Amino acid sequence: MFDQATLKLKADPLILSALNEDITSEDVSTNSVMPCAKQGEVDLICKEDGVLCGIQIFERVFTLIDENTEVIFYAEDGQNIKKGDLIAKVKGDIRVLLSGERTALNYLQRMSGIATYTGKVAELLEGTGTTLLDTRKTTPNNRIFEKYSVRIGGGANHRYNLSDGVLLKDNHIGAAGGVKEAVAMAKAYAPFVRKIEVEVENLEMVKQAVEAKADIIMLDNMTHEEIKTAMEYIAGRAEVEVSGNVTKENISVLTDLGVDYISSGALTHSAPILDLSLKNLHAV
Amino acid sequence: MFDQATLKLKADPLILSALNEDITSEDVSTNSVMPCAKQGEVDLICKEDGVLCGIQIFERVFTLIDENTEVIFYAEDGQNIKKGDLIAKVKGDIRVLLSGERTALNYLQRMSGIATYTGKVAELLEGTGTTLLDTRKTTPNNRIFEKYSVRIGGGANHRYNLSDGVLLKDNHIGAAGGVKEAVAMAKAYAPFVRKIEVEVENLEMVKQAVEAKADIIMLDNMTHEEIKTAMEYIAGRAEVEVSGNVTKENISVLTDLGVDYISSGALTHSAPILDLSLKNLHAV
Amino acid sequence: MFDQATLKLKADPLILSALNEDITSEDVSTNSVMPCAKQGEVDLICKEDGVLCGIQIFERVFTLIDENTEVIFYAEDGQNIKKGDLIAKVKGDIRVLLSGERTALNYLQRMSGIATYTGKVAELLEGTGTTLLDTRKTTPNNRIFEKYSVRIGGGANHRYNLSDGVLLKDNHIGAAGGVKEAVAMAKAYAPFVRKIEVEVENLEMVKQAVEAKADIIMLDNMTHEEIKTAMEYIAGRAEVEVSGNVTKENISVLTDLGVDYISSGALTHSAPILDLSLKNLHAV
Amino acid sequence: MFDQATLKLKADPLILSALNEDITSEDVSTNSVMPCAKQGEVDLICKEDGVLCGIQIFERVFTLIDENTEVIFYAEDGQNIKKGDLIAKVKGDIRVLLSGERTALNYLQRMSGIATYTGKVAELLEGTGTTLLDTRKTTPNNRIFEKYSVRIGGGANHRYNLSDGVLLKDNHIGAAGGVKEAVAMAKAYAPFVRKIEVEVENLEMVKQAVEAKADIIMLDNMTHEEIKTAMEYIAGRAEVEVSGNVTKENISVLTDLGVDYISSGALTHSAPILDLSLKNLHAV
Amino acid sequence: MFDQATLKLKADPLILSALNEDITSEDVSTNSVMPCAKQGEVDLICKEDGVLCGIQIFERVFTLIDENTEVIFYAEDGQNIKKGDLIAKVKGDIRVLLSGERTALNYLQRMSGIATYTGKVAELLEGTGTTLLDTRKTTPNNRIFEKYSVRIGGGANHRYNLSDGVLLKDNHIGAAGGVKEAVAMAKAYAPFVRKIEVEVENLEMVKQAVEAKADIIMLDNMTHEEIKTAMEYIAGRAEVEVSGNVTKENISVLTDLGVDYISSGALTHSAPILDLSLKNLHAV
Amino acid sequence: MFDQATLKLKADPLILSALNEDITSEDVSTNSVMPCAKQGEVDLICKEDGVLCGIQIFERVFTLIDENTEVIFYAEDGQNIKKGDLIAKVKGDIRVLLSGERTALNYLQRMSGIATYTGKVAELLEGTGTTLLDTRKTTPNNRIFEKYSVRIGGGANHRYNLSDGVLLKDNHIGAAGGVKEAVAMAKAYAPFVRKIEVEVENLEMVKQAVEAKADIIMLDNMTHEEIKTAMEYIAGRAEVEVSGNVTKENISVLTDLGVDYISSGALTHSAPILDLSLKNLHAV
Repeated sequence: MFDQATLKLKADPLILSALNEDITSEDVSTNSVMPCAKQGEVDLICKEDGVLCGIQIFERVFTLIDENTEVIFYAEDGQNIKKGDLIAKVKGDIRVLLSGERTALNYLQRMSGIATYTGKVAELLEGTGTTLLDTRKTTPNNRIFEKYSVRIGGGANHRYNLSDGVLLKDNHIGAAGGVKEAVAMAKAYAPFVRKIEVEVENLEMVKQAVEAKADIIMLDNMTHEEIKTAMEYIAGRAEVEVSGNVTKENISVLTDLGVDYISSGALTHSAPILDLSLKNLHAV
Repeated sequence: MFDQATLKLKADPLILSALNEDITSEDVSTNSVMPCAKQGEVDLICKEDGVLCGIQIFERVFTLIDENTEVIFYAEDGQNIKKGDLIAKVKGDIRVLLSGERTALNYLQRMSGIATYTGKVAELLEGTGTTLLDTRKTTPNNRIFEKYSVRIGGGANHRYNLSDGVLLKDNHIGAAGGVKEAVAMAKAYAPFVRKIEVEVENLEMVKQAVEAKADIIMLDNMTHEEIKTAMEYIAGRAEVEVSGNVTKENISVLTDLGVDYISSGALTHSAPILDLSLKNLHAV
Repeated sequence: MFDQATLKLKADPLILSALNEDITSEDVSTNSVMPCAKQGEVDLICKEDGVLCGIQIFERVFTLIDENTEVIFYAEDGQNIKKGDLIAKVKGDIRVLLSGERTALNYLQRMSGIATYTGKVAELLEGTGTTLLDTRKTTPNNRIFEKYSVRIGGGANHRYNLSDGVLLKDNHIGAAGGVKEAVAMAKAYAPFVRKIEVEVENLEMVKQAVEAKADIIMLDNMTHEEIKTAMEYIAGRAEVEVSGNVTKENISVLTDLGVDYISSGALTHSAPILDLSLKNLHAV
Repeated sequence: MFDQATLKLKADPLILSALNEDITSEDVSTNSVMPCAKQGEVDLICKEDGVLCGIQIFERVFTLIDENTEVIFYAEDGQNIKKGDLIAKVKGDIRVLLSGERTALNYLQRMSGIATYTGKVAELLEGTGTTLLDTRKTTPNNRIFEKYSVRIGGGANHRYNLSDGVLLKDNHIGAAGGVKEAVAMAKAYAPFVRKIEVEVENLEMVKQAVEAKADIIMLDNMTHEEIKTAMEYIAGRAEVEVSGNVTKENISVLTDLGVDYISSGALTHSAPILDLSLKNLHAV
Repeated sequence: MFDQATLKLKADPLILSALNEDITSEDVSTNSVMPCAKQGEVDLICKEDGVLCGIQIFERVFTLIDENTEVIFYAEDGQNIKKGDLIAKVKGDIRVLLSGERTALNYLQRMSGIATYTGKVAELLEGTGTTLLDTRKTTPNNRIFEKYSVRIGGGANHRYNLSDGVLLKDNHIGAAGGVKEAVAMAKAYAPFVRKIEVEVENLEMVKQAVEAKADIIMLDNMTHEEIKTAMEYIAGRAEVEVSGNVTKENISVLTDLGVDYISSGALTHSAPILDLSLKNLHAV
Repeated sequence: MFDQATLKLKADPLILSALNEDITSEDVSTNSVMPCAKQGEVDLICKEDGVLCGIQIFERVFTLIDENTEVIFYAEDGQNIKKGDLIAKVKGDIRVLLSGERTALNYLQRMSGIATYTGKVAELLEGTGTTLLDTRKTTPNNRIFEKYSVRIGGGANHRYNLSDGVLLKDNHIGAAGGVKEAVAMAKAYAPFVRKIEVEVENLEMVKQAVEAKADIIMLDNMTHEEIKTAMEYIAGRAEVEVSGNVTKENISVLTDLGVDYISSGALTHSAPILDLSLKNLHAV
């Protein structure tokens, strides 16, 4: 569930912007045939098995157009839904139902798609003690929705953006003059409530990161063998994240390593949508 | 190529909003280690074969942060690129290069992903006389980028939004009292520069649409046999669009029908990204 | 009637912007004498015969300031109203009534002025089979209101903007290399739901436009005789629009030509306002 | 001339909003035939005698789309221009010239129309010692442009909005309990840099206003005789403004009264546009 | 009390912007421990004696997040409050109470601080016939709140901004060529509802300002003796304002001069906050 | 120094909003006497000893109005400046210098005031190993400027906002059911790059926080004795922050405790401004 502050402050402006993308003057088709308001009802139907996600956003698309629209849900975020399930009923002015339909579904399908894909990947980590993380490889202007969908699907969130997490990559390290210097500079500069994460590419850098007392060490694009050696060296002195083109197909090779986190950009950048649709619109 | 008006009026506000999503106060990691501006250069490298798309948007992310950033491209939108190709060099304040990297890549990877996927589907229609179309199933607040990517990939655009095209679906037809009435009402109401398209589900509706002089008839979720019968009946009296969960995998069964258009939501809602990355950042 | 989506997404931001133009800190006069809220009522009176237009926008000015304001209308958009008629009663905090008065009237007077002027021009076309059209010569940031007023007055809308209609003028034709080439390029580029309109200035161009299968041919600034010849040549092979400084005073010379459309910029750029005012404010 | 601060802070956001009204995705006609930028030039021609006004706004429409557009003016704001005069040359990417044309002309024609109309009315007051004023009856979201046009035409501005001028009308007076009380309350509440103006409808109220030491007395809808009597009574103890449906046609009856100001809503709400157009576009 | 128009048009956008400054994705602490809405109540307690100011803004922070939040006040703006007083109870979803707390208090503490400080300074002018004024030395994006707080504290407002008051300083005078010329130009240019104020630095300029018929003369940074001489010279022919680093500590030397106004930037730029806090949050 | 991304994305919109607060139509005084642009120069002079802060923001106020304005600085952020020092020269259109003056100074004075005050407090902590922190008690819509000023003055930043740091207060602990539960829930919910801070009020809570493995423990409003006992108990097992109405006057009692951090809201909510002004404007 999104809380009220996030919905009002973060989601609403983006949803309004999305509606303005789809309606630049009026919904011509609908207004052609329905000159006046008319009460009606439509069903939200699941057309593919998966994890539902984004029902508040789906609802909000309609209530931002017309606060008198009512949505009754028969399932909630995070629930496994099956093809054919009735997910919700939307009631209100039929013109509002028609004008909001596409935008509402575009959000719901995408969010549910991410939750579904994340769920499948997270399942492969069950019992391993490793947490599945997202990345900042999100769709522009959709991060708040996509990071939420990852959580609903069973993943956890890495930093939200460049301002609220420190991740020192090779370029930062180069600019600072070394891992040790970079960590020290970040500890001095960044608000002290941030942990310091360092991205490393080989064992030598792992050692430097441990010595520099980095809070988190990200092993980037290392082989299974390299990760294993690194884990032995680190030995609990820092949290460990593994990253590098991780997908549903290849994550299994990483599950026996005991790393704390595996991050996967694919969760948000390449998950297909989950098919849902509005059916049976009728006047009431 | 986007023209200047589209870039300034449409793309810029969305790109700025995306940057604000990723930088809510400052790029803490970068500012920790680089207190001052420092000139540098980084390479944009292709990591996967595909169709390049979105180089102006990629560039604009950087120039909106700092107009002194310079991007030199070695490939252009629509070009087939190969794993390992050098696509561009970005020169400017290293802090700008680092702060803009993720947003720039998020746009470029997604746009190139759609162009690549569209290209593969469009290829299957080559020589058939059928045009591949997108839909309004785009990612919220990314339509301008995604519709462009479809064109670059070899597809064509259906209506841009609810205001600039008339598509009468079952609910509109029901509200009007029949296909004939719906088309007549749309012709009376909608600006006369719009063609009138009607979505039909069976042959009876096809007949009504032809009689009503609809400009375009969309055959929705019909079988191969039904489409064939419909085509024979219509016999050039209207343009014909076929739709219904069309993907790269299943489009081939539709290529022998001689329809004018096939539309596919998958082009924009389920294309995976194309992998590209920034490498070899160094001071100059 | 505006539908709810158009009001919320399109009208509200413009109305708020207009209110901010008139109130940059507070309504000093009103706040000087009324330190607290006080319920009152005021009458909207017609001071000149004409066609009423814009009552939802009039109402919304007040409800956007204070949702507790109530407006009861005794007439509706499109209705002929007479000098002295009571059009509406506005009830609410007197301070809100006073602060919103000017902006509400500025909208209502202008919209009613356009509807009234359009009504007079449209009347001259009655029975001729010719439809009266507006143009894009609208007041900046008032198009949604002015195009609506034209419809209410009995006219029809030409394209809404540069993005949702294709009109190839001499410069487009020149750039393409000829009428034929221009129409072909537009058919290839523009979303297929657009009709292609071509502006022509002489008979030679008319012929080219017909051959190029333009959907609509606009005869620009032609004489009565030239239009007649053009109509005979076109003979139903395209829709025909006539344009060129058409006003209430000169439109009658065009009524015997059987053209489909006559467009007039004067409807929106030179209609005088209709006088309406708020009277009899009193506490309740 | 607008100063730089007014242009950047006040005009730019409105012009951008107007451009967004006219281009919701792209200029389809232009982009169909011109896939790439191409340098060209077009002439701004006067098609009707009048007073030119708004050349900076005209220019800014183009430079906001593309800062490389150049406009060379051969006339300036306030100058009398004749049918056929070459007013300016606009040089730049032809696509920018075409996409900005309508919005640029919509501003320039309206502003020049107001300046022209104001000029004609102001002329009738020449030598009388009476200043012509505008009102707040401006087009929503165009006040900054319309008040400027009045000044260029030879009029002067009344208060800009509800926040920066005090005008106590009958309702304010009623709420305060009398003219005296209203003036006293306004002097106590409003920033002391404001003059206090009171609207009166009869001689009794004139007397009260003088006694209350109002700075300005507005005689609203009074007869010539009543105004004369009022003027004798006031005898210089306050500035005097006359208002009430003043137009070019009826202002002459007010010119022998020696009032300080006559205000006319018609200047901004009913002036017809001045015809100007872009001609002779050609590549360079 | 702010009126409804000021709250909706002026305060709301600033408050929303302030909330967005404090919540860039979500309130992580609160959402960690409270996954769902839960009704609660919290007390607003005064921790320092002073003048309360800004209760509507305090309330609006919460209702803008969630319109179901209720605030019951036990004191009102302008009231003297004591350490330990219960000022209000806020009821609603505990998550909303926690997420809005800091922003609500930041406004209330600052506004009450200004009202308290202004009250102390105004007290020193009681019985002197001199009015205490604020300046434009306000905190950026807080002027509407700070000018209001000055009024609540017992001061009055100077001009609100550069657009709604004329104050000719040395640079304006220099550009015009003298005090006389500057006043004449301002009377000709500025809307006639503005009084003309001139800033002077010595007796010679005072004389010129009186001759030029300036409405208000500001004596800037003059000594007690100089002011006295100036007052004798002016002798009621203009209103007189005294300015120049006036604070609570030094204002007493100016109280025997009989000037109309003393302005003090310190009221808004250097008043310390008044300490208030939310206590005793509990579920209900 | 602010980096370019922070300036463009974060500072610019706020500065523009501040300018719009001060110029709602135009700078009437300036435009009265200077109808045309005229090049000039003005000096920025220090009128009080302190720490300079905000020169980029000062400059940007002018360049956002007119990009041709040039500012040459003779001192930089963080530098100690003395009464009488020439800090900068601003060159450009005199009208721009006059219109931007107040807003530019309002930012610079406030930022320098905070840096100056912070510097004095930080000095008292020199050699103690304790770092001075700010809080979220900033002025609404000025946080980015105020947090920067604290750093320039020698302090460090606590979390930037509610989204990028976890601080569990009594209410969070109550909702969770205890310190242990709250910390566990935060570790599970918040992005793993966040440290978890817990606010405690007594020794019992300190113990729970240590057991719960909180990363940071905030001792709120404890006595010197209590803090000492807490420090002994914690013994390095968590970082320690002390808070509670800390000011320049009372911070010295906390300097012998060896705590890691002391936070003070006074740095941002009650620092007086530093006096700076523009002098000697002259044409060039």
